[in-house]
Amino acid sequence: MASIAPAVDPSVNPAIAAQQRILALPLTEGRRMADAIRVLAMDAVEKAKSGHPGMPMGIADAATVLFTKYLKYDAADPRWADRDRFVLSAGHGSMLLYALLHLTGHAGIGTEDLRNFRQLHSVAAGHPEYGEHPAIETTTGPLGQGLANAVGMAMAERHLSARFGKSLVDHRTWVIAGDGCLMEGISHEAASIAGHFRLNKLTVLWDDNGISIDGDVTITSSDDVLRRFQSYGWAVRRVDGHDQEAVARALDAATRSGKPTLIACKTIIGFSAPSKAGTSGVHGAALGGVELQAAKDALGWTAAPFEIPEEIKTPWEAAGRRSAGSRRSWLKRLAKHPQKAEFERAMAGKLPDGWHEAGVAHRAKLAEEMPKIATRIASQRALEALVPAIPEMMGGSADLTGSNNTNVRGIPVFSVQNLAGRYVHWGIREHGMAAAMNGLALHGGVIPYSGTFLVFADYMRPSIRLAALMRQRVIHVLTHDSIGLGEDGPTHQPVETLASLRVIPHLHVFRPADAMETAECWELAVARADGPAVLALSRQNLPALRAEAGENKSARGGYVLAEASAMRRATLVATGSEVHLAMQARETLEAEGIPTAVVSLPCWELFALQDDGYRQQVLGDAPRFGIEAALGFGWDRWLGNDGTFIGMTGFGASAPADDLFKHFGITAEAAVAAVRRKLA
Amino acid sequence: MASIAPAVDPSVNPAIAAQQRILALPLTEGRRMADAIRVLAMDAVEKAKSGHPGMPMGIADAATVLFTKYLKYDAADPRWADRDRFVLSAGHGSMLLYALLHLTGHAGIGTEDLRNFRQLHSVAAGHPEYGEHPAIETTTGPLGQGLANAVGMAMAERHLSARFGKSLVDHRTWVIAGDGCLMEGISHEAASIAGHFRLNKLTVLWDDNGISIDGDVTITSSDDVLRRFQSYGWAVRRVDGHDQEAVARALDAATRSGKPTLIACKTIIGFSAPSKAGTSGVHGAALGGVELQAAKDALGWTAAPFEIPEEIKTPWEAAGRRSAGSRRSWLKRLAKHPQKAEFERAMAGKLPDGWHEAGVAHRAKLAEEMPKIATRIASQRALEALVPAIPEMMGGSADLTGSNNTNVRGIPVFSVQNLAGRYVHWGIREHGMAAAMNGLALHGGVIPYSGTFLVFADYMRPSIRLAALMRQRVIHVLTHDSIGLGEDGPTHQPVETLASLRVIPHLHVFRPADAMETAECWELAVARADGPAVLALSRQNLPALRAEAGENKSARGGYVLAEASAMRRATLVATGSEVHLAMQARETLEAEGIPTAVVSLPCWELFALQDDGYRQQVLGDAPRFGIEAALGFGWDRWLGNDGTFIGMTGFGASAPADDLFKHFGITAEAAVAAVRRKLA
Repeated sequence: MASIAPAVDPSVNPAIAAQQRILALPLTEGRRMADAIRVLAMDAVEKAKSGHPGMPMGIADAATVLFTKYLKYDAADPRWADRDRFVLSAGHGSMLLYALLHLTGHAGIGTEDLRNFRQLHSVAAGHPEYGEHPAIETTTGPLGQGLANAVGMAMAERHLSARFGKSLVDHRTWVIAGDGCLMEGISHEAASIAGHFRLNKLTVLWDDNGISIDGDVTITSSDDVLRRFQSYGWAVRRVDGHDQEAVARALDAATRSGKPTLIACKTIIGFSAPSKAGTSGVHGAALGGVELQAAKDALGWTAAPFEIPEEIKTPWEAAGRRSAGSRRSWLKRLAKHPQKAEFERAMAGKLPDGWHEAGVAHRAKLAEEMPKIATRIASQRALEALVPAIPEMMGGSADLTGSNNTNVRGIPVFSVQNLAGRYVHWGIREHGMAAAMNGLALHGGVIPYSGTFLVFADYMRPSIRLAALMRQRVIHVLTHDSIGLGEDGPTHQPVETLASLRVIPHLHVFRPADAMETAECWELAVARADGPAVLALSRQNLPALRAEAGENKSARGGYVLAEASAMRRATLVATGSEVHLAMQARETLEAEGIPTAVVSLPCWELFALQDDGYRQQVLGDAPRFGIEAALGFGWDRWLGNDGTFIGMTGFGASAPADDLFKHFGITAEAAVAAVRRKLA
Repeated sequence: MASIAPAVDPSVNPAIAAQQRILALPLTEGRRMADAIRVLAMDAVEKAKSGHPGMPMGIADAATVLFTKYLKYDAADPRWADRDRFVLSAGHGSMLLYALLHLTGHAGIGTEDLRNFRQLHSVAAGHPEYGEHPAIETTTGPLGQGLANAVGMAMAERHLSARFGKSLVDHRTWVIAGDGCLMEGISHEAASIAGHFRLNKLTVLWDDNGISIDGDVTITSSDDVLRRFQSYGWAVRRVDGHDQEAVARALDAATRSGKPTLIACKTIIGFSAPSKAGTSGVHGAALGGVELQAAKDALGWTAAPFEIPEEIKTPWEAAGRRSAGSRRSWLKRLAKHPQKAEFERAMAGKLPDGWHEAGVAHRAKLAEEMPKIATRIASQRALEALVPAIPEMMGGSADLTGSNNTNVRGIPVFSVQNLAGRYVHWGIREHGMAAAMNGLALHGGVIPYSGTFLVFADYMRPSIRLAALMRQRVIHVLTHDSIGLGEDGPTHQPVETLASLRVIPHLHVFRPADAMETAECWELAVARADGPAVLALSRQNLPALRAEAGENKSARGGYVLAEASAMRRATLVATGSEVHLAMQARETLEAEGIPTAVVSLPCWELFALQDDGYRQQVLGDAPRFGIEAALGFGWDRWLGNDGTFIGMTGFGASAPADDLFKHFGITAEAAVAAVRRKLA
């Protein structure tokens, strides 16, 4: 093989000298296989004139060891339920994943797809996009998210293994993460969760290349990362990431560890690039023709762009079939397993027989009882009906269990001692919780729901966005949903949060008005397999508004809760805790001879999906008045330009809830006055 | 003093036994002073029937040591520029702060205020609210934020000390944080920043009470917190938080440390409550009359509610005057200091003479040059005009300097070696950056601006919200503001982000259309002393649209960029990178005989502040068409119900930018077609 003449003085860039030493070592099949990753990454980025070659070039050796010796997968069936999960948390290095899937013989990711890297409709998108290819386990790119997803996946494995037994569920979760992932705060939350639950089948390979976009990592961080992970209860190791045998020994040790493992793989970013290796210049841009050719020369790579020589292709494809036997054995075990149908149902995301009946029975009870309770309490009652009927529901709270009412009597806590438990005390880690929930959902076999205060949706927003982008069934129970929480004040009172969530595509934001609507919204959230949901719930008690339980009226997003006694002169449109104010206002207005309808709008997104005719019929032609204890941003859509909004105009304040509603003028009286003014 | 008969078997609640041992020790003045905090917290929470007594009761001893022996402050002037900063990061324990301010003799927080704890208009809000009292350094409650604010304050101190000298700036920053603060991911980012910059004048007292809302911390965390902070380069200590002498020794050591210091103060939450101490039951609810009286009995406290015996009041008020001499000396030093005026100007948040002229000159140049550049590049040019003229501007980026274009030639980097540096490499820590920036602004003397991608506003949203709530001048440069970023795909393409920011009260969201508007928006953001701003900037080049520089047209939020040639038949309203598309569409429409106006709307919030007449004049009576490469959520307000929106309807995709604009139908042609359809 060729050795390279450094274009940069090694004394200026010490990585170059190290690279030369490595390139001078005897060429092995493993190195050649890794080089295949490198050249595909270089070629694809070069052709797209866009992308991140440095990371795949650096971590290629470690990834080769992982995909040829440790990762359990079968390219013939990338969705095999008991496969190991692989998460490329440093998603900008997407060509690493695409190269690996291509080389290991996965269908649907051929040379043409790599040539179309970062082009419209290509499987090989700029960052790995869940759904683009069945072997892409999760969408990554926003740093740290993949690592936290993997924690959720590893939790799902432990839980399902406890539920269905090791013969069906016994796999590992592997992550490749970069410095960015570990600098992000979410990595703290996720790693702490993993350590606490002793997720020993989780292994993180840290691409410790010492480089981030702004330059050497030493300009931004002085962390002792290994010590840090030890503090979370992780096993840690440090290896030369270009020494495949050393990497193999570290991965081997990880498979025997009683703790999650972090392996710092010391690598040279952009390995083989003769002048740019070891610098941030190779992180996020094409190498350029000259540097690219010199890198290939340095590797002794002579094949045409995107072409892989047969002698390298063959061992790669063999690696892709390495676990085919394991999969066949597993299929045999599954075929004989007494819980086969239940396992397949849960993994397919289908709800069990009887779940709907449980919901209907619960609603019938509510219709009789007409309880005056907070919708957070109503949510707990709905959970008491649904969770026992749906064994894959796994709840939790970010340390607000008693406030979120997310626990269910008799459902055990998930812990090291009881991995079959279905309630997770997530700690004060909203972001880690939300991202791990994405991982639970992505793994399959689990429907996760969370709890925190609505205002703290902000802490988990990057993960909520990804759940929406990936269309995962992840349900967030967000209580204390307005100034109605009272004394905790503006830091805890969402005013902009509802709008900020409603704007996220594919996310259904439910804000039920009473116990009945809460039960309906829960059923809708659980039944929806292709997207996340938020339930915004009140702290304060609310009267029951509906005495019939037959139809799930929330399913259309909005409906006429009370029609006007004669031709409408006003329509009051409200959500959640303000619907009963609208009902009170209607009573006054009707008594004054102003026929008034009340529309409850528990889910804007579902209402928007209805046909124009239905929406028009519900909203009517009379002047419209919106009532919501939040900012009016977005309400124009329903109220029209001539509408009136009764709600917040800024942040809240600290005081008892009743005082606040009066102070901010969100009352039945205010609604009545607004109607009077308008009709005067 | 009385000893207590435990209402709970100490073997069930070991905290009770420990509490008894402590209560049996000889009573000291320090303990009595701490007890004053305890009873005020108990009384206020009891009266409000709402609040968090447990934390103040637990940490009272350590807080007493801090406020009587170490914290440099003068109750007579809580805004003294060289005071130590004290941040109660665990903001739910607000009564701790109110009790301390009250006891130390601060004006404006009398007994009546404590009696009105958590009532409307009370200084003593549920959580400490910046602005309610001059001694409240920051708004806390959302966990972890205060700790990260403190990191920013400590950075400000180091920076201003380097700039103005130790004789004017030489103070410490002290934090009381709880388990929640340290579990949050933001604590990782903030602590890592503090360690990296060796902020040795920052000391964190961790109220290590082992209890969170869901119960014992061991159910959620197995972290070795001290080891973790050591990994960040912190000094760490562990003390009995009820042993005031031990706390004093630890604080003393902290003042001599070359590193930031974390002191784990082992405490009993709700100390003195005979049955609830050491349990989560005392965290967030009133004790109840019986338990409260028993706690007072245990302390030997006999004064009436809210009353402080003279012999305890006296030493507390003396403590509040402890640093009066230091302040007088400092005032003398200031009076003689050559930079007195400059220091006072910067601390008052007033911009220097000449800054505006620098901006105007820059715009005049742009009017001549008419550069076709990305607005992120235009932002860099604006910074090159403003940053040298405004020495308190301190920029940075979360590891995207080259992409955000936030650096300015000749401005040195802030580092341990050069604390006078004004550019911060924040690392991949958006949340920590944003929260520390809040601290920089709150400290005074610094106007911080950041950089990251617009989509990653989500990562820092909790801190952006707090900047808005506190009305701090914090400026976020958020580039790559639409599908125009191209190949990085939907994870990196904001579609909902603009709306999600526009809904935050007091936040000004600027989306300039060209270099001229970018310069204008920068001037507006910098000149606005009472609130944060976001600049949403394009990755891609944009043509210059304005050749005159006289008036800052962006100041009104929106304006007619091009009037129709005759009576308007259509008005195209656009922001940022879509304004030039509107101009292209206008050209075609005018050529077709459809008189069309183009309105640029760089800042919705400023436009909303204009009078109806101006807004009506700008938007006109002709049908309106909105164009923005984002979701239409919120646009109804400007377009009316009869309006047409041309933009995104969901998440983006990975492809070159031009392909994406065509794919998603955000083009001049699409706008022309929409107008034609409407007018047909």
